[in-house]
Amino acid sequence: MKETHGGDWSGFQSEYGFLPLDFSANVSPLGLPASVREAAVRALENADRYPDPLCRELRIRLAEHHGIPDTQVVCGNGAADLIFRICRALRPRCALLTAPDFEEYERALRAENCEIRYVARSVSNDFCLDPDHLKTQIDGAELLFLSNPNNPSGLITEKAVLRKILEICAEVRCVPVIDECFMDFTEHPEENSLIPELCRWPDLVILKAFTKTYAMAGLRLGYAICGSNSLAGKIQREGQPWPVSNVAQEAGLAALNEKDYVNCLRLLISRERQRMIVAMEVLGLRVIPGKANYLLFQCGDGVLEKKLRDRGILIRDCGSFEGLSAGWFRVAVRTGTENDRLLRTLQEVL
Amino acid sequence: MKETHGGDWSGFQSEYGFLPLDFSANVSPLGLPASVREAAVRALENADRYPDPLCRELRIRLAEHHGIPDTQVVCGNGAADLIFRICRALRPRCALLTAPDFEEYERALRAENCEIRYVARSVSNDFCLDPDHLKTQIDGAELLFLSNPNNPSGLITEKAVLRKILEICAEVRCVPVIDECFMDFTEHPEENSLIPELCRWPDLVILKAFTKTYAMAGLRLGYAICGSNSLAGKIQREGQPWPVSNVAQEAGLAALNEKDYVNCLRLLISRERQRMIVAMEVLGLRVIPGKANYLLFQCGDGVLEKKLRDRGILIRDCGSFEGLSAGWFRVAVRTGTENDRLLRTLQEVL
Repeated sequence: MKETHGGDWSGFQSEYGFLPLDFSANVSPLGLPASVREAAVRALENADRYPDPLCRELRIRLAEHHGIPDTQVVCGNGAADLIFRICRALRPRCALLTAPDFEEYERALRAENCEIRYVARSVSNDFCLDPDHLKTQIDGAELLFLSNPNNPSGLITEKAVLRKILEICAEVRCVPVIDECFMDFTEHPEENSLIPELCRWPDLVILKAFTKTYAMAGLRLGYAICGSNSLAGKIQREGQPWPVSNVAQEAGLAALNEKDYVNCLRLLISRERQRMIVAMEVLGLRVIPGKANYLLFQCGDGVLEKKLRDRGILIRDCGSFEGLSAGWFRVAVRTGTENDRLLRTLQEVL
Repeated sequence: MKETHGGDWSGFQSEYGFLPLDFSANVSPLGLPASVREAAVRALENADRYPDPLCRELRIRLAEHHGIPDTQVVCGNGAADLIFRICRALRPRCALLTAPDFEEYERALRAENCEIRYVARSVSNDFCLDPDHLKTQIDGAELLFLSNPNNPSGLITEKAVLRKILEICAEVRCVPVIDECFMDFTEHPEENSLIPELCRWPDLVILKAFTKTYAMAGLRLGYAICGSNSLAGKIQREGQPWPVSNVAQEAGLAALNEKDYVNCLRLLISRERQRMIVAMEVLGLRVIPGKANYLLFQCGDGVLEKKLRDRGILIRDCGSFEGLSAGWFRVAVRTGTENDRLLRTLQEVL
């Protein structure tokens, strides 16, 4: 058994004997909020009870949080769980992906033996999406995945463009899944999120994660917000009855009160991201000016990932992403001290 | 969205405003062992890291525990997760179930549009399995699920009978999945478990759960032990990359040291089970002499479940199980005090 995802600190640890500084996974560098940790500890009091299969309380709070009906929310064992459940529930014969984009969409679609078409976000076009080009590929596609901000580029697709894409999807009854898992890290999430427009798009699914925003990757919690009850019901019924642990459910409830944490996080990421872009460009790297908590960059040194690994730092080699080639890498934006260490080490090896 | 599983304390709580005494879920009544709780709390220190997708450390410890290679172990988000992943990985066109048996097998198979054939464990035959009858149904079946001890009857299928069934399966290349999730609650698990014979059966899968034995239902952790590396690899690759939280992985590692807890549990369950059988028979109920931590019984009062529910006690109505009919119910065996309350309440309502 081999592992090819980011954030594989366990594989690193067994190879090198110590824990790495992990820039390959894009989670909040501020750690689990104290109130969330306390809620998780309290949840252990009920560890002997099966978790609520329907996550009723959490769904009600999420519904209040976003101003939508709770019947349109589905919780999952991380956003990855929902990506697989959506593909299972809809069993598309053909789906559209943009390239590059988050690799898990492709894995989940392939598990359904689904034909996949790619719409290029070409490097020469600054990774922008062209709705007219997307339209030429849409016929027969029953599902579209699209991350916003895009992973790995960090670029935001503007609302006007997204609306065009949603209209194109609606015409052919293609279900658009917009992955906003990293939207909370951007400077103006309320301007760019499609959640306020949910009521206009009955086929729309929006993906969100606690995992990244609240540093809960190890606890596993994500959710899908659906344009209709029937779509939410289909996804809810897919797979085992108890996907979300009671620890994750209680942690999620506490996290929703952590408004200050999210504001601090956003300020930190914004400041550090800008600083890193400048510093990396000084090192001669081509950096894509992303808006999320990670940066995509191009580097002539094809074995950069291995060199940093040997120095205790994990980064993501994006050479295998559809639409990218060898020499593209992604790093998370973390705290000032951690970013300094990355930048120093980059300078050493380049 | 409606919920139809046992252990739905959350649904009860929102309807009645307080927590029920739950005899509908069959988990250890001794609660989470202290060392497991401590390990879960410690795991929160690494909540910001993705869990190890391959559960490497836990699989190595499980392999030592059972005396098998770690490459034949797959961990899951509860045993239910593994039931669904096995069905997905093998995609059988036709499968064999015994009736009555755990309902989740049927749900997972139906999700694959699999034809299901039932081999009756008939009431008149004390729910025993007849291998010769099973043989008449096996042609074309690619998967067989069978719980031992059986859920809901609690009866153990003897090893000689199981060997016959495994031979029948081997002849037609049907994969037998033997669910031993409740074996730890029986008096002589080492005599009845098939794990020591695993090397003889390359197609065999054995299911085990931490959930029940260590009162970890809310944390979600189960595993499959496979007769071959290739079968384990197939199940491992099914679904999302990070199904098991790091809290569950660390809790599982700690649980494996809890030998005294399991011995105490077994003594308690054995004593209380015998006491409950006698007391329930005195009340005029027909009780199946199960060997696990739950008892199946027949009662003329078809609304017994509702009557107990109104008195704050949840039991499992088994009328919907394939092979059973209205009037069959299942109760967990819990601590002396809790069982007394159940027996007193049964006496009141009957």
